Amino acid sequence: MRIIRVRLAKRSYDIVVAKNAMGFLARYIRKLNIGESAYVITNNLIKRRCSSRLIRALQEAGLDFKIKIIPDTERSKSIPVLSSVINDLAKFDRKRRTFIIALGGGVVGDLSGLAASIYKRGIPYLQIPTTLLAQVDSAIGGKTALDLKEGKNLIGAFYQPRLVLSDVSLLKTLDQRQLRSGLAEVIKYGIIKDSSLFAYLEKEYKNILKAKPDVLEHVVAVSSRIKAGIVQADEREEKGLRTILNFGHSVGHAIEAASGFNRYTHGEAVGLGMLVALEISSRLRFISSLFESRVENLIKATGLPTLISGIALKDIMRAFYRDKKFCGSQNRMVLTRGLGRPEIVRDLPIALIETAITKRIISLD
Amino acid sequence: MRIIRVRLAKRSYDIVVAKNAMGFLARYIRKLNIGESAYVITNNLIKRRCSSRLIRALQEAGLDFKIKIIPDTERSKSIPVLSSVINDLAKFDRKRRTFIIALGGGVVGDLSGLAASIYKRGIPYLQIPTTLLAQVDSAIGGKTALDLKEGKNLIGAFYQPRLVLSDVSLLKTLDQRQLRSGLAEVIKYGIIKDSSLFAYLEKEYKNILKAKPDVLEHVVAVSSRIKAGIVQADEREEKGLRTILNFGHSVGHAIEAASGFNRYTHGEAVGLGMLVALEISSRLRFISSLFESRVENLIKATGLPTLISGIALKDIMRAFYRDKKFCGSQNRMVLTRGLGRPEIVRDLPIALIETAITKRIISLD
Repeated sequence: MRIIRVRLAKRSYDIVVAKNAMGFLARYIRKLNIGESAYVITNNLIKRRCSSRLIRALQEAGLDFKIKIIPDTERSKSIPVLSSVINDLAKFDRKRRTFIIALGGGVVGDLSGLAASIYKRGIPYLQIPTTLLAQVDSAIGGKTALDLKEGKNLIGAFYQPRLVLSDVSLLKTLDQRQLRSGLAEVIKYGIIKDSSLFAYLEKEYKNILKAKPDVLEHVVAVSSRIKAGIVQADEREEKGLRTILNFGHSVGHAIEAASGFNRYTHGEAVGLGMLVALEISSRLRFISSLFESRVENLIKATGLPTLISGIALKDIMRAFYRDKKFCGSQNRMVLTRGLGRPEIVRDLPIALIETAITKRIISLD
Repeated sequence: MRIIRVRLAKRSYDIVVAKNAMGFLARYIRKLNIGESAYVITNNLIKRRCSSRLIRALQEAGLDFKIKIIPDTERSKSIPVLSSVINDLAKFDRKRRTFIIALGGGVVGDLSGLAASIYKRGIPYLQIPTTLLAQVDSAIGGKTALDLKEGKNLIGAFYQPRLVLSDVSLLKTLDQRQLRSGLAEVIKYGIIKDSSLFAYLEKEYKNILKAKPDVLEHVVAVSSRIKAGIVQADEREEKGLRTILNFGHSVGHAIEAASGFNRYTHGEAVGLGMLVALEISSRLRFISSLFESRVENLIKATGLPTLISGIALKDIMRAFYRDKKFCGSQNRMVLTRGLGRPEIVRDLPIALIETAITKRIISLD
């Protein structure tokens, strides 16, 4: 069991990473004194996979609870689903103090956090992430979000959970593609912040894909510590420090958007985005070709895609420039000068970005 | 012209109170450097009354702008209207930095503030309140809100505007009932915080109802300073200091709720709630009957209702206990021990509250 403290003054909280973390839930809820009624938001698939242990923990803690099911799709990050959740929550919320538990991946976490932040101007919520991606990334840091037709994550709030409980035993039932998707974000942490994590991944990536609990506990704990450190230094993304977390993400998001968010998982797109960022870093002579190959080899070895198929360059570029991270026409990308040495670069020549992306595209002809 | 600074560290802002405050808008927008595109939220009535001056100011500042009309009803404080506003805003928001201007009363202000707080995890917004009630109360302090079927203001956020521009010339076209409604909140400030304001109101209440600009400027500025002081000390209502602003409000809200929010304006209900709080304070010997009469006389003189008609005691009591301000079955009310001496009292005998309310009810027999 590892506990990582996210230090944000009055909004500080623990990330508990353990093989049977669910067993600590009852104790934490009592200690935090956040309420007597738990409103659990999840989807049907996760409910089948993980809810029995959660229910046992809630009963042990002597809590009232209700399980709210939302559809298992990115489309749940929408105002109509938020409205349904909040109206249902208001009906459930009587007399005893109510808090929210987000049991699920990024979609459940993003929606639950936003609901918690605006219901009664803020009630407590806990994150119990059930995917590797959510345990190492989205459940930490208090970013909550919904999508609009005009773009992803256009609605949201910064609102910290009171606890993140990462039970790595829950990852046993994930399929390879989901594990790989989470692994892409872990590789990202290695590149931007931690050469020993990167070396560990080179050695142990197969055991991650086999969901070996000890390896997962280590990887989730180290990743959580890195993310927590960055969030502590720049909670609301005002100082630019949080920006390095976007390594691989600007092009990654563009690939996701250009393909209608259904061809690649988020992690797969980030893997591709990292390869593009690497290519640009290499062409700018930020890194050696040896280093470029080393990272590329790890990404390839995990089985993450290394080529973009079925998407045209112009569609990726259009999505790239529509990204909300840019002001005006200026572009901004996180590049790398080596392990633990990210660099934010503005106003890259468009031709350079296009060349680097094109190198990864499988021609449609 | 009077400027009141709301001091909240990085979230500090000015309240500008003046007869032609709109004339200062362009300068402030430039100084604040909040963007180049203004998304104005208002309703049709206010647009007719006030928008020409605003449009002139926006053109003077060289801004792009769009005016979004929402229905002129409390029902606009709903998720569907929020959704319509945010989707429209996302379409308008291209390239140049966009901020929101709330031009209107409490409904427009509450909705606009929430939209600003969650769009892109927070964009700047300005309050240009167009009613006396909004200028002295709702536009200040960053409380934003929507209603649910289960209760009013159940959704919301604490999110501070970057400027409150109170142009008292805009109040000239308000009808007597609206002016009186705002006056009720001003009387409240006199009771909880400022005996000289109270004495000023005894002398000048007729000129307020005649919308005399000098008197309004004084009253809005003094009220803004009081509200700003309380908000500074307890921004997120965590320390109980902001609670004294609820003088007259727990019973007032119950009267509004029990009558379906259409018989009395908010200010009228607060006036009635203050009379009930006064009666209880008197029965507990917190105040003399002389003081009780003094306050009652002012409320009566302004033309605010002093009797409750068409609502049964049991409906008021049911709404009183459903109020989100209570935890469990404990009640809590703000009473008074004299001008500037509010007192928060818990667990009052129900019989005492019922007697005090009954005294104001016109029997239906």
